[in-house]
Amino acid sequence: MKIALAQINPTVGDIAGNAGLIRGDIARARRAGAELVVFPELAIIGYPPKDLLLKPAVVEQCVAAVDDLAATCTDIAAVIGYPCPADGQTGRLLYNAAALCADGRIMHRHVKSLLPTYDVFDEHRYFEPGPGADIAPLADVRLGISVCEDLWNDRELSGRQLYHDNPIEDLARRGAQIFINCSASPFVLGKHAFRMRLFGRAAQRHGLPLVYCNQVGGNDELVFDGNSCVFDATGCLIAHARDFEPDLLIVDVPVGDAGSTGPARIETPSTGMASLHQALVLGLRDYCRKCGFDSVVVGLSGGIDSAVTAALCVAALGRDKVRAVAMPSRFSSEGSVADARALAAAVNIHLDVVPIEEAHRAFERVLEPVFRGRRPDVAEENIQARCRGVILMAISNKFGSMLVSTGNKSELAVGYCTLYGDMAGGLAILSDVPKTLVWQLARWINEDPQSPLRRVYGRAVIPEASITKPPSAELRANQTDQDSLPPYEVLDQIIERYVEQEHSARRIIAETGLDPAVVNHVVRLIDVNEYKRKQAAPGIKVTGRAFGFGRRMPIAQRYQAQHIPAHSPVDAASAKAEDQ
Amino acid sequence: MKIALAQINPTVGDIAGNAGLIRGDIARARRAGAELVVFPELAIIGYPPKDLLLKPAVVEQCVAAVDDLAATCTDIAAVIGYPCPADGQTGRLLYNAAALCADGRIMHRHVKSLLPTYDVFDEHRYFEPGPGADIAPLADVRLGISVCEDLWNDRELSGRQLYHDNPIEDLARRGAQIFINCSASPFVLGKHAFRMRLFGRAAQRHGLPLVYCNQVGGNDELVFDGNSCVFDATGCLIAHARDFEPDLLIVDVPVGDAGSTGPARIETPSTGMASLHQALVLGLRDYCRKCGFDSVVVGLSGGIDSAVTAALCVAALGRDKVRAVAMPSRFSSEGSVADARALAAAVNIHLDVVPIEEAHRAFERVLEPVFRGRRPDVAEENIQARCRGVILMAISNKFGSMLVSTGNKSELAVGYCTLYGDMAGGLAILSDVPKTLVWQLARWINEDPQSPLRRVYGRAVIPEASITKPPSAELRANQTDQDSLPPYEVLDQIIERYVEQEHSARRIIAETGLDPAVVNHVVRLIDVNEYKRKQAAPGIKVTGRAFGFGRRMPIAQRYQAQHIPAHSPVDAASAKAEDQ
Repeated sequence: MKIALAQINPTVGDIAGNAGLIRGDIARARRAGAELVVFPELAIIGYPPKDLLLKPAVVEQCVAAVDDLAATCTDIAAVIGYPCPADGQTGRLLYNAAALCADGRIMHRHVKSLLPTYDVFDEHRYFEPGPGADIAPLADVRLGISVCEDLWNDRELSGRQLYHDNPIEDLARRGAQIFINCSASPFVLGKHAFRMRLFGRAAQRHGLPLVYCNQVGGNDELVFDGNSCVFDATGCLIAHARDFEPDLLIVDVPVGDAGSTGPARIETPSTGMASLHQALVLGLRDYCRKCGFDSVVVGLSGGIDSAVTAALCVAALGRDKVRAVAMPSRFSSEGSVADARALAAAVNIHLDVVPIEEAHRAFERVLEPVFRGRRPDVAEENIQARCRGVILMAISNKFGSMLVSTGNKSELAVGYCTLYGDMAGGLAILSDVPKTLVWQLARWINEDPQSPLRRVYGRAVIPEASITKPPSAELRANQTDQDSLPPYEVLDQIIERYVEQEHSARRIIAETGLDPAVVNHVVRLIDVNEYKRKQAAPGIKVTGRAFGFGRRMPIAQRYQAQHIPAHSPVDAASAKAEDQ
Repeated sequence: MKIALAQINPTVGDIAGNAGLIRGDIARARRAGAELVVFPELAIIGYPPKDLLLKPAVVEQCVAAVDDLAATCTDIAAVIGYPCPADGQTGRLLYNAAALCADGRIMHRHVKSLLPTYDVFDEHRYFEPGPGADIAPLADVRLGISVCEDLWNDRELSGRQLYHDNPIEDLARRGAQIFINCSASPFVLGKHAFRMRLFGRAAQRHGLPLVYCNQVGGNDELVFDGNSCVFDATGCLIAHARDFEPDLLIVDVPVGDAGSTGPARIETPSTGMASLHQALVLGLRDYCRKCGFDSVVVGLSGGIDSAVTAALCVAALGRDKVRAVAMPSRFSSEGSVADARALAAAVNIHLDVVPIEEAHRAFERVLEPVFRGRRPDVAEENIQARCRGVILMAISNKFGSMLVSTGNKSELAVGYCTLYGDMAGGLAILSDVPKTLVWQLARWINEDPQSPLRRVYGRAVIPEASITKPPSAELRANQTDQDSLPPYEVLDQIIERYVEQEHSARRIIAETGLDPAVVNHVVRLIDVNEYKRKQAAPGIKVTGRAFGFGRRMPIAQRYQAQHIPAHSPVDAASAKAEDQ
């Protein structure tokens, strides 16, 4: 059966625009001789539509658009993900469905049964689960259609089955001859290798070919990596679409006794740093495009985070769409400005140098009567960071360029950042990238033959000094990050365990052998800085657990997360103002 | 049956502290001769615990704490809400349960069946629904225990039943003699009147008494109003606890054939402005207390929002815990500073006057080379608002006082506010109060005999001029809000319909007769300003739909919400930078 996988990049809410993409790929699939074209989950509205689904007019328009598309499916069939009103008088109002369009109408509707409601997913908020697996006949083939999570309740590969039902097993039991899965599965570092195992095993276990069509593109915090693929009935990969860009993959899938009539395209998915780089670039590019920005502004400190941020912006938008600003203070080293200049020169972007001394001093003067008799502390440090925030936002406002903030996940975890200062911006591109990974990414950008900037500029673009010098916020004389924090190798290890794995301080101490005082200190910093993250710019999720929409912590809370051996009093109550 | 309703104010995550509150109320109930004491939903950890529930150590500690409490229940029984591991090998890991503790152990465990997953509620994220209603015998009485939402799937009072099950009907069918409901039901203006109807009808329909014990106190965006109450088998209210403060209400509930042995206390719940004022005051006070702040700072512009904010702060924390700052600019009228001074004098709070001119001019000077040749626009206006943000945050940092921001719901809806400027702060106390309601609240604070400030100061505290003058941001000469926005009466009507009711622009135009251009403009402003609200301080929910945790909108989206009659082109793509 000749099937087209239409890996499109929809814009959330743009029903007319997405319908246009779908119409275009139906036509291309038809021209390629496909009998069936498969689109991603909720393709008509884009994933995740979030509370747009609560607007009755949105659902009406989605249904009308899919009806219109179905009318064009006369000589080809299409499976299109869309939200539609649920049947019955009780329960939630909507279904997360996939319409099988053929003969000019919606012939069959599969309703998603397994509704992910964890991490960044909220599907129980909107959807009623489907009544169960159901076979969709198309010509002489019995299609087993499923939507994303329906495929994931795997007994062998998951620690615990989150759901009581298994729609894939049901489809096989009811005589499906091929699995068709419409997905919107976001990128996480290393996840695609797991997907391949999961899909291959499902195909093999049931002896049925499996078609997986995923969305591509960035939507707010999530990047969808595409990577749509097809497995044959023995569990072998027989076709693979491109990653991180739209694709239309035509595959002759052997169904039943029919053998394959020809080889299909198998693209090699990127992994590791290459996939991280692609995810961040696509996430930024799509966020700008879908918000209506065509240029960005970045503050350059001379440090590694802002250098990598600027490099990613150039890779995403092109050097003429990136404006950089260096804002030295009385505490900036000469090297800092030189490193910022070197980076800007290396990628050939516009650089303004706007010293903050004058504004800094103005605030000191007007606050002097208020602060009289008090010694300098973090208040004065934050004023500098916020002067930079004011300057960057003024430039953003004046030129209509989105401010990209430069903080990494390690800083955001422990609150080593200033609200309304370096945290200001429309998107925090590195906010799910721990510092140790930022360094790796910098090396990759400079040195790897796959690195787009390495290829374009023919040399390393990030100054070596930015990579190798000790990190410093430069908000007081001779400051370094390690005055306040453990080494980043240690810090990132604790963050990974506490935030991503939900390990307790006790378990981290027991399993790593790290100093209990260090672990307790970091864990406490993570907990008390939730108020900062509440007001952080959106980031791009690349790990299993990002701060933001997928991690929902109370702010005013007093959970005692530190591991306190007997007879060791610790003040759990924290003055959250300390570094606001 | 003598029952105590223990309306406690738990702190989220403070398992030891909450256990202490529970232990204390068990002892008080015992001394009052109660046979049974009922606590709110998830009382041991406080509601909503959010992703703290994903930490295995948290659940272990909750279970251990309730086991300890059960051991003390030898001569009295207690129903205590807590999270516990779910049975079985598949499904979500936890139950939202209520333990019936008696004879020194957990005798029975009721598991919540109906798991709210809408608005601010995310219970499907954590919990497996209970296996069904189950009767808990206590001495010779058959208790029908339920948790919060279990009671709310009412056929008569709800438009559509969100759930397929009805645990209350099941309990009645299985022979319950009394309904015991542990709740954590947050305040919404006017909601308690609905609750009373719902509970009264449920009691009457089944001919059974109903005991409703609600949590009290503020937890992040939610304020729980208490208002625990008891209905007899005819649906009559026979006891009612205080609102907005902890209470222990002892009631002799007639069960089966036993008549009541004596009258119980019936407190009158506050309504309207009085309830709004109490909710905001409790929300702020608890947010400060539970975060570890004992004082706040507020910027006073001379306008109505900041005056009401400062008044609420004084009512919540006392005048010596409130520090005000007036920050006049070249565009401030003389009246503005005078009105700020008058308010500060009226409530006798410390006022600093810190002009922003010097900092404002410093930014103009350093940005002059960057901005050369461009005309003044919103960039310059925002610089002023952000200078104020820097000053207020510096004072917050220096004195450890939380900054309370002053923006109202109307401004936040349409983005008539500056990120990192007037939006800066730890809590936005008015962010769910529309402007027209702010005016009403100001009048109430000044004039109502119930108003605490009216009672303390013996006169109106908010300057009349702040209430009556035309609202202005004073960011350019002779500016008023109505240069950019429709009158607030119109604006608030559109916001209420579009945000709270999810009406489409088309429906709003049809039902209100408002100018389509005005409706379309407002609807577009609401949609394109999601990026600002993403970074807003937490607010206090008082309406059916607040911005924040309960409204989850995509940012990079292009839903065409405007109602465009044929032949009327509108540019749906929006330059979101315009007022960032």
